[in-house]
Amino acid sequence: MTSEVDFYWDIGSTNTYFAFKLLPGVLQQTGASVRYHPLNLGYVFRHYNYTLMDEPREKLRYRRRDLERWAEHYGLPFRMPDKFPIKTSRALRGALAMRRLGKEQPYLDALFAAYWENNIAVDEYDNIVPLAESLGIDGDDFTGLAESGEIKAELVDMTGAALARGIFGAPTFVVGEEIFWGKDRMDFLERELALASAAG
Amino acid sequence: MTSEVDFYWDIGSTNTYFAFKLLPGVLQQTGASVRYHPLNLGYVFRHYNYTLMDEPREKLRYRRRDLERWAEHYGLPFRMPDKFPIKTSRALRGALAMRRLGKEQPYLDALFAAYWENNIAVDEYDNIVPLAESLGIDGDDFTGLAESGEIKAELVDMTGAALARGIFGAPTFVVGEEIFWGKDRMDFLERELALASAAG
Repeated sequence: MTSEVDFYWDIGSTNTYFAFKLLPGVLQQTGASVRYHPLNLGYVFRHYNYTLMDEPREKLRYRRRDLERWAEHYGLPFRMPDKFPIKTSRALRGALAMRRLGKEQPYLDALFAAYWENNIAVDEYDNIVPLAESLGIDGDDFTGLAESGEIKAELVDMTGAALARGIFGAPTFVVGEEIFWGKDRMDFLERELALASAAG
Repeated sequence: MTSEVDFYWDIGSTNTYFAFKLLPGVLQQTGASVRYHPLNLGYVFRHYNYTLMDEPREKLRYRRRDLERWAEHYGLPFRMPDKFPIKTSRALRGALAMRRLGKEQPYLDALFAAYWENNIAVDEYDNIVPLAESLGIDGDDFTGLAESGEIKAELVDMTGAALARGIFGAPTFVVGEEIFWGKDRMDFLERELALASAAG
C-alpha cells in the first residue's frame, strides 16, 4: 500500500526550504505521496511566545553557517533573502487557491525557488501573482481566490488543526501518529514511510 | 596531520549522551583526537535566559520521542533518568579531577553510562565517588580535588571561555573555527575532521 506523509510548511521557514527540496527523493525511495499543509508559522510562534530573533546572537550566527553547510552538501542554490522574516499569509493562501486550480505542486516549486533561491520577497501580491501567471493562471482569478473568505478561513482552520495535532514548528512531517520535525530528520522519515508501505 | 576536535559537554544534556556515544566512531574514521571541555550548561542557559522546561509541552513530548528513535536507531541502551534535570557541577569538576589523575576518558565512559543508561543521579557525590573508585581512585583524593578552589575556578573559566567562543549549547564540537551543535551534525563533523586531516 502507498504510504502518505503530511507536510506542514511555511514559505517563511528557512529549514522548510531544505526539507521541501529533499522530500522528492524520499518520496521516490519509498513510493509515498505527500499532502501539503500550509501553516501560518507566525501564528504558531505567537501561540507559543517564541521569537526567532530573540535567540542568542551566537545561535543565529551558527544557524546561518549551518544553512550554508546544508546548501553546499546538497548542492542547492540557496541564498538568504534580503527581506527576512516576512509575512507569509498571502503566499500560503495562494497555495490553497492553486490547489483548487490543480496547480499546487508547481506553485510550491515556483514559490520556494522565488524566495529561497532568487531573493524575491513573496509577502506581496506584486511578487506572488507572477508565479501563478507563469503557470497559466489569471492573476485576478488567483488573488480573488486567495483573498476569499473561504480560503482565509481554511488557512486559519488548518493552522488550528496543526496546533491541535501537536505541531509546534516547521518543517514538520506526520506519518500516522509519528511526528518528524526539522530538515535533519529526513532519514527517520524515510524509514517510517518505508515501514508504513511494507505494513500497508 | 592528526586533526583535533574540541567537545563541549555537560552530563545533564540528553543530546550530549548521544554525541558522546557516536564520537568514537567519528574519531576512528578520521584519525582525529578529542579534547574534552566540561561546560556548565545550567550557567550557559541562565546566561541566555533559556529554560528547557519552558518549551511547549508538545515540543518536550516530541523531544522524548526523538530520543527514543535515536536510541533505537543506534542500538544504545539509553533510558531517561528518573531525576532530570540535575545539577551537574560536581560531576563536571570530577572530570577535571580525573583528567589530572590520568583517568578522564574512563571516568566519562562511566559517568555517561551511570546517568543515561543506569538511572543513577550523578548530582551527588554518593553516586559519583563510586565511579572514581571503580577506576582505582581513592574517594577522598577524588572529592578533595573536585572540591578544590583550583578546579572550581577552572570549571568557571572553561565555561566562560566557551561562551566567549560562541558556544550556546551542548553538545558542541569545534574544529578550528567551525562550530557544530547538536547530536545530529556528526556527519558534518566527520567531514570537517577528514578535511582538516587532509589539509594538515
